Amino acid sequence: MKWIFRTTITIAFSIIASSAAKAQEPSYIQYVNPYIGSADHGHVFVGANVPNGLVQLGPSQIAQTWDRFNGWDWCSGYNYISEEILGFTHTHLSGTGIGDLNDILILPANGSPHLHPAPFNQMDKGYGSKISKANEKVEAGYYKVLLEDYDILAELTASERVGYHKYTFNKKDNPHLLIDLGFRMNWDTPTDTYLKWVDDHTIIGYRFSKGWANDQKVYFAIKSNTKFDNIDFYNDSTAVKGYRVAQGKSIKAIVTLNPAKPVELKVGLSPVSTTNALQNIEAEIPDWDFAKATQKAQKKWNDVLKKIDFQADDNTKTIFYTALYHSYFAPTLFSDVNGDYMGTDKQVYNDKTHQQYTVFSLWDTYRALHPLMTILEEQKSKNFVKSMLNIYQQQGKLPVWHLWANETNTMVGLPAIPVVADAMLKGLIDKQDLELAYEAIKTTAMGYEHGLDFVTKLTYIPIENMSNESVAWALEYAIADFGAYQAAKFLNKQEDAAYFEKRYKLYKHYYDAEVGHFVGRHANGTFRRPFDPFYAEHRNNDYCEGNAWQYTWLVPQDVQGLIDLMGGDRKFVEKLDEFINLPEQLDNASPDISGMIGQYAQGNEPNHHVPYLYAYAGAPWKGAELVHKTMTKYFTNDPAGLCGNDDVGQMSAWYVFSAVGIYPANPMDGKYVFGSPLMQQATFNLPNGKTFSIKTKNNGPKNIYINKVKLNGKNYPYSYITHELIMQGGELEFEMSAKPNKKFAADKTFRP
Amino acid sequence: MKWIFRTTITIAFSIIASSAAKAQEPSYIQYVNPYIGSADHGHVFVGANVPNGLVQLGPSQIAQTWDRFNGWDWCSGYNYISEEILGFTHTHLSGTGIGDLNDILILPANGSPHLHPAPFNQMDKGYGSKISKANEKVEAGYYKVLLEDYDILAELTASERVGYHKYTFNKKDNPHLLIDLGFRMNWDTPTDTYLKWVDDHTIIGYRFSKGWANDQKVYFAIKSNTKFDNIDFYNDSTAVKGYRVAQGKSIKAIVTLNPAKPVELKVGLSPVSTTNALQNIEAEIPDWDFAKATQKAQKKWNDVLKKIDFQADDNTKTIFYTALYHSYFAPTLFSDVNGDYMGTDKQVYNDKTHQQYTVFSLWDTYRALHPLMTILEEQKSKNFVKSMLNIYQQQGKLPVWHLWANETNTMVGLPAIPVVADAMLKGLIDKQDLELAYEAIKTTAMGYEHGLDFVTKLTYIPIENMSNESVAWALEYAIADFGAYQAAKFLNKQEDAAYFEKRYKLYKHYYDAEVGHFVGRHANGTFRRPFDPFYAEHRNNDYCEGNAWQYTWLVPQDVQGLIDLMGGDRKFVEKLDEFINLPEQLDNASPDISGMIGQYAQGNEPNHHVPYLYAYAGAPWKGAELVHKTMTKYFTNDPAGLCGNDDVGQMSAWYVFSAVGIYPANPMDGKYVFGSPLMQQATFNLPNGKTFSIKTKNNGPKNIYINKVKLNGKNYPYSYITHELIMQGGELEFEMSAKPNKKFAADKTFRP
Repeated sequence: MKWIFRTTITIAFSIIASSAAKAQEPSYIQYVNPYIGSADHGHVFVGANVPNGLVQLGPSQIAQTWDRFNGWDWCSGYNYISEEILGFTHTHLSGTGIGDLNDILILPANGSPHLHPAPFNQMDKGYGSKISKANEKVEAGYYKVLLEDYDILAELTASERVGYHKYTFNKKDNPHLLIDLGFRMNWDTPTDTYLKWVDDHTIIGYRFSKGWANDQKVYFAIKSNTKFDNIDFYNDSTAVKGYRVAQGKSIKAIVTLNPAKPVELKVGLSPVSTTNALQNIEAEIPDWDFAKATQKAQKKWNDVLKKIDFQADDNTKTIFYTALYHSYFAPTLFSDVNGDYMGTDKQVYNDKTHQQYTVFSLWDTYRALHPLMTILEEQKSKNFVKSMLNIYQQQGKLPVWHLWANETNTMVGLPAIPVVADAMLKGLIDKQDLELAYEAIKTTAMGYEHGLDFVTKLTYIPIENMSNESVAWALEYAIADFGAYQAAKFLNKQEDAAYFEKRYKLYKHYYDAEVGHFVGRHANGTFRRPFDPFYAEHRNNDYCEGNAWQYTWLVPQDVQGLIDLMGGDRKFVEKLDEFINLPEQLDNASPDISGMIGQYAQGNEPNHHVPYLYAYAGAPWKGAELVHKTMTKYFTNDPAGLCGNDDVGQMSAWYVFSAVGIYPANPMDGKYVFGSPLMQQATFNLPNGKTFSIKTKNNGPKNIYINKVKLNGKNYPYSYITHELIMQGGELEFEMSAKPNKKFAADKTFRP
Repeated sequence: MKWIFRTTITIAFSIIASSAAKAQEPSYIQYVNPYIGSADHGHVFVGANVPNGLVQLGPSQIAQTWDRFNGWDWCSGYNYISEEILGFTHTHLSGTGIGDLNDILILPANGSPHLHPAPFNQMDKGYGSKISKANEKVEAGYYKVLLEDYDILAELTASERVGYHKYTFNKKDNPHLLIDLGFRMNWDTPTDTYLKWVDDHTIIGYRFSKGWANDQKVYFAIKSNTKFDNIDFYNDSTAVKGYRVAQGKSIKAIVTLNPAKPVELKVGLSPVSTTNALQNIEAEIPDWDFAKATQKAQKKWNDVLKKIDFQADDNTKTIFYTALYHSYFAPTLFSDVNGDYMGTDKQVYNDKTHQQYTVFSLWDTYRALHPLMTILEEQKSKNFVKSMLNIYQQQGKLPVWHLWANETNTMVGLPAIPVVADAMLKGLIDKQDLELAYEAIKTTAMGYEHGLDFVTKLTYIPIENMSNESVAWALEYAIADFGAYQAAKFLNKQEDAAYFEKRYKLYKHYYDAEVGHFVGRHANGTFRRPFDPFYAEHRNNDYCEGNAWQYTWLVPQDVQGLIDLMGGDRKFVEKLDEFINLPEQLDNASPDISGMIGQYAQGNEPNHHVPYLYAYAGAPWKGAELVHKTMTKYFTNDPAGLCGNDDVGQMSAWYVFSAVGIYPANPMDGKYVFGSPLMQQATFNLPNGKTFSIKTKNNGPKNIYINKVKLNGKNYPYSYITHELIMQGGELEFEMSAKPNKKFAADKTFRP
């Protein structure tokens, strides 16, 4: 698939995005191409939202017969290949490998009302319309499409908690709106839905559902600029007559109206109540001014994108700013404007002192997205951690994969611990919460589930106890344990620090010297045989979405320990070389493993730090080669421009870091390891008011190696920089060359 | 079964109930025998509560293998015949024919902990203990029992929202508490439960369940006077280790402790949050003083019982005050102390201006319980109606049978309308709510469900449309329509009044002159044949829990119309005579039909007004015979002292009215029809500060007829009194005689 419609988009910007220009600021949103990652397995959300907004208002399409290999690519509700739209829904996931949300479907329509979505390729058999890409326009904070079957132009924008629809009926033939609370996609099924026709211009309701989130509750309010002439309610296909309230598993409404001008709807969401949803509308979008709302949304995007002024060719800038844009899709705000939010313990909390967030895809995002936010977003980062501590208090352990007040327990390890520990070390936890944060880390680390009871006893998890994924769990536990170790050290809890130091080294138990990989172990101490380092069947080996080759590098917390295990720098580097030069063979592969360079899989998270491991062995130039090749091969300005799931922004955050030449290989030690920058200059406008610039000299497509580095004008021999130095502001200069300077940071003193 | 343990109870009062005496008020609670109605089909709650309190803390027992005819008699959780207790639960239903609640089971125990309830008659196979009636003590607001298997004395008392437990461990052998959120009885099944060990003395949690209430949510907090040494959590039988929070379908906790003195627990409930549950404890029972809490509870009971000072022999007083006590078991408070409550639309509301109530068994209680409360409880009555209006706003129609924020839609008709209309006429709806109240009545009356679409078109419901119960629905609709008519008239909505006047007379369509009964009609106008006026199969005739004989009188709103239909006074009275003199034959009877005098069934609601119908035909003396016979035959001071389900107080409220000699035969016209008083004197201490006394002269077991009546010393020729006259205060005197005065109120002028 080729991305051939850039012209259309550019024209769009000249009309709509001009608002950002008016503010006399550089416009960064012109470099956002929301289609990147919307084809193939990228699974990104396409539609209108604002940074970290709860509302992600966009089209939901027909997932062509659900199975893992077809419907999977509609996890977000949208795939670039579809040219059919069922309606517009207010919540989406972006880049996940499991589908949920797509709540509160609204569709403007003409003609005879339908109550059920059309099947694929048979749009006359149900509701929904054909569209064409030529008539679709996507920007940060704005979405537009012509619903051809109805001849209705639909435009969408959003604020944090409100979706704003504008429907221009080019023809009027029984014009109506369909509200379908029964609409479902992917894993999701509605359990209880409710609509109330409050007055001529107001509808409220809720939609509760069971899916990936076991018990998801969305309350909403719809305000219309156009009078409702009548509303007919249905439960599934059955008319619900006589009352202005309908409640059931699958409530729908056909709202008839006679628009004299475009129909505008403001749809407020709340995790708590319709009252709050109405208040959210009033607070965020009080006016009926769609253009102004769009401008506000795009200003919000520009305000976060400008936090990194990235100078490069337009194509690279587009890939970069789209990655930065995607880095702000989650976590999403979960507090109402009045401070109410829904706890994981199914009760409403009110806290005006912080904002609660949800959609924590932590196994992905602890690696780069959260570290990126510790640089760009002080207050948000604090709120993310405070949200996790609240979740800890409600569910007894830190979140794993949290979705709308539900712990989904998806993926392996204890991935909140690195985030909390990193925040602690970086001063992003308020003093009064430090002990609570430590309690949360320790309690979580001292659990019993999934082999953790072996870890607490300082031993390995035998495959008799855990027939699949034991190595993945153990390696992730060891990473989290380094976080616990860092936190204990930080708070001067020496006994605990000594204990967790042992734990973060438990990975060594799995190193099978005979094969040179981490391998599952029997209770009697022997390693699993037969052993195939390429074997990668989903949920059916000792790893998780990977094979032995991919997992053998998963010790970011103790790279020196891993180097030692493998026999020193040379052998370590040789093995890395072998890894990236092996055939791209995968035996019975999980579809999550993609973006291959040899056995290196950029398309999934466990390898994200691998290019930066070379620096630990004194060969950062080899890492530069790998990271440069990965960035240029697997990140393109194209709907298929992501090589795997965006994973709620982690893949994009990896690119944001890598493109500016640094990466938090160990996301709990405050170091960012150098790679191979793609830009001329990247200036970080830090939340403390300072700026930190990364300049490059002699950079170019072939000059991918760092020849030497200056910090604030002085020679800087290290292959990493610290968080502290970045936050102090200043200027880092990479002098690039086409040939590697193999001496740069080769010495142990200068390695990360 | 005979009630042979009155002695024990009397002794109990001398110790515990003395608190009421201390206040230098007459003690009425000594005349409460909570066992009345606890055997057979009475289904009353036995345990500790306060008037209209949310918490009803009492034992839950083993419903011996559930089927309609065995387990049915444990609908409340308790039956007098059981001498086994599984634990103490905090919510119960009283007198219903469907079982639910019994939430949050706590059991103090010794020995090896059990996680599952013992089966019937095998107490060693699970948790629970044998008890003996000799060691059980029940009073208003207090419950005590010796758990013999554990040698633990358990005492219970309550406030509105808090249950207070006191456990004296006579022996200590691994003393522990079991908290079983998975415990279920009857229709109920837990769907999601949660426990959090907050600190050494505090546990919080919730229990959500599906049962009669489709989605019931109870939040709670437990405060203990004794330190918890350890808590082990389980989900069903599986240990949940490592965390202090457990969540799942069936969470249980074994709390080990080492009591130096009796263990006391205060358990606060909330429909909204654990935070509110804690606040409810703090507000209602701040101290650790079980005796004081008991005194407070009993004072609250005395304060409502004293609203009618009823002078009669002790046995009659006991039946009377127990009936008055049972009249205060519901509706139950549903607002937290801070004004929060859970709406039927699944969201939390805060309203400090009124108190929300739940447990509205309206098909039962519109007949006598709500009218009784309009005399005794001005503020509560206002709150009941305001609660119903809130429910209307949330669910689009007035409640039918409302249970913990769930509309169960149980029974037939629109039984909230009479209550709202009666309240409107009696000045119990605030001015600013009058239009809302009318809107609620009219919207509810204009619905489409259950044949209502025929009624709105002023025609009958054909049996082709409703194969069962069409007559029952139609007659109840006509009753509600009289309420709508009264409300429209009150608000001077003349067009509506004319329309609803037609509707309340639609009952005439069902009168089959050939058989002299109301009979289901075909669409073509013919009546159902074959016809058997005795046929009474449950949910399988044109009636509802009754037969044609029983339903033929169900026109309280237009008795004169019914008399006319039957051919005048004489034929009407003859038919009533025939009715009560028929054999007590029932063909395929519903178990709800009981308490027979001929075909008159006191044990179910549709006949409750029948004895008073004689007065409408000028023969109140015949009604006196029937009501006297019913009261003395079917209301006894005995566990089996109710002849059918108490129906959340309706059966008891019938007795309260009938025993003082008046009854609201048409509960929407402000008239109370005279019957046959049982007392020497009954003084109503009215909420407006006035008193209304009903005195009798020459009353006695044989002097059951009203010979003549005086009101405030003057001759009073009417066979009814109005609400207005009662509320003005004054004195009504019934002169009784052994022979009927057939002239009394025989004249049309003096009939109701």
